[in-house]
Amino acid sequence: MAEIDRPARRVGRPRTAVLTRELIAEAALRLLDESGADGFTMARLAQALRVRPSALYNHVDGKEDVIAGVRELVSDRIDVSAFETQPWDAAMRVWAHSYRVAFAAHPPTVALLATLPLTGALRTMQMYDTVVAAMVRAGWPEPEVLPTIVAVESFILGSALDAIAPADMFDPSGAEDAVPAFASAYEARIASLGAVPPADAAFETGLAALLDGLRVRHERVRVAAS
Amino acid sequence: MAEIDRPARRVGRPRTAVLTRELIAEAALRLLDESGADGFTMARLAQALRVRPSALYNHVDGKEDVIAGVRELVSDRIDVSAFETQPWDAAMRVWAHSYRVAFAAHPPTVALLATLPLTGALRTMQMYDTVVAAMVRAGWPEPEVLPTIVAVESFILGSALDAIAPADMFDPSGAEDAVPAFASAYEARIASLGAVPPADAAFETGLAALLDGLRVRHERVRVAAS
Repeated sequence: MAEIDRPARRVGRPRTAVLTRELIAEAALRLLDESGADGFTMARLAQALRVRPSALYNHVDGKEDVIAGVRELVSDRIDVSAFETQPWDAAMRVWAHSYRVAFAAHPPTVALLATLPLTGALRTMQMYDTVVAAMVRAGWPEPEVLPTIVAVESFILGSALDAIAPADMFDPSGAEDAVPAFASAYEARIASLGAVPPADAAFETGLAALLDGLRVRHERVRVAAS
Repeated sequence: MAEIDRPARRVGRPRTAVLTRELIAEAALRLLDESGADGFTMARLAQALRVRPSALYNHVDGKEDVIAGVRELVSDRIDVSAFETQPWDAAMRVWAHSYRVAFAAHPPTVALLATLPLTGALRTMQMYDTVVAAMVRAGWPEPEVLPTIVAVESFILGSALDAIAPADMFDPSGAEDAVPAFASAYEARIASLGAVPPADAAFETGLAALLDGLRVRHERVRVAAS
């Protein structure tokens, strides 16, 4: 988890926290959550923090560096600890669950962070380092490790978007006659899931299939290597 | 494919196309691509079309209806034809490839369409109807069909975001000592892929694994049902 360099408040001291890279990242994440990614600027961030834009540049290099800090904040919530103690596939299941939750909590970060370089996000790179090292130890060929991780991430990020979609997003009401198979499958899903959120069911279905498929691949490459 | 009701231009006629739901959707998609989803309003759309906002409402019910039209335009590019002629898993591969390309061509639509209801997007529902019908014919239990489709879609949409990310987004330059396993896997990937875009490699890796895992599941449910 992030160590946040937040000074203790004392009586008589101003209630304004001393600016740090971490506080700037936190404010940026709040601003993204409130206003979306398109309108995110350093000027608005400074306004939200009630400082001059120039004050930000004492702590960060610019917008890309702020986004790197946001990436670290979000990825701090992703649990990689299981990669130190469990087999790669069990660990990937734990990792995927916490990864989806971390991004679903901050919807505008999904598309933003999926399409920007990791540059400057050292804590995020350290997360990847733990995952990569565990997969190499488990016998995955090194050139396959990043493509495999990115594939699982793509599924997780798409699932994080689905998790914030309305539960009835596929509701075919009014079009049942035009799309009978779709409408029937929609009803069957409702009847089957009960109170389980549809996004959770889709995520578990996909994660199980993806990990089953990766186990098949892992077995194949290990046999080939031995 | 969409039939676009675009009138032929004649000499002496004004060059302004007659407004239709389809032309409004096309303009909305261009506006989304140019300005992103956050700033999308009916007023801006009217401005882009050089009409008064009230003119739009002769053809669409409002912003949600416009987005439904955008969804139809994007999903028109998704190839479901293989579901009529090939086994479900081969068809899903064709579908997934065209689906990823359709969304990667319009980055701001990924997060937008993944999180809004399908209401009003009849052509998109018809696409789902074809996929659902083929899966039911192939012996998938009806309650599992939508969760399975949504799982594959989540992977595709995440992969569409990855497809528009820079090829070197994982470049650990400057941090190699702090993340040695990650840096080494990054180099190994470059050496292995050559000119293949990393996003394509990750997509093929994930799609193969996901379909392998779904085939395992399909076999299991068919055995259970027989």
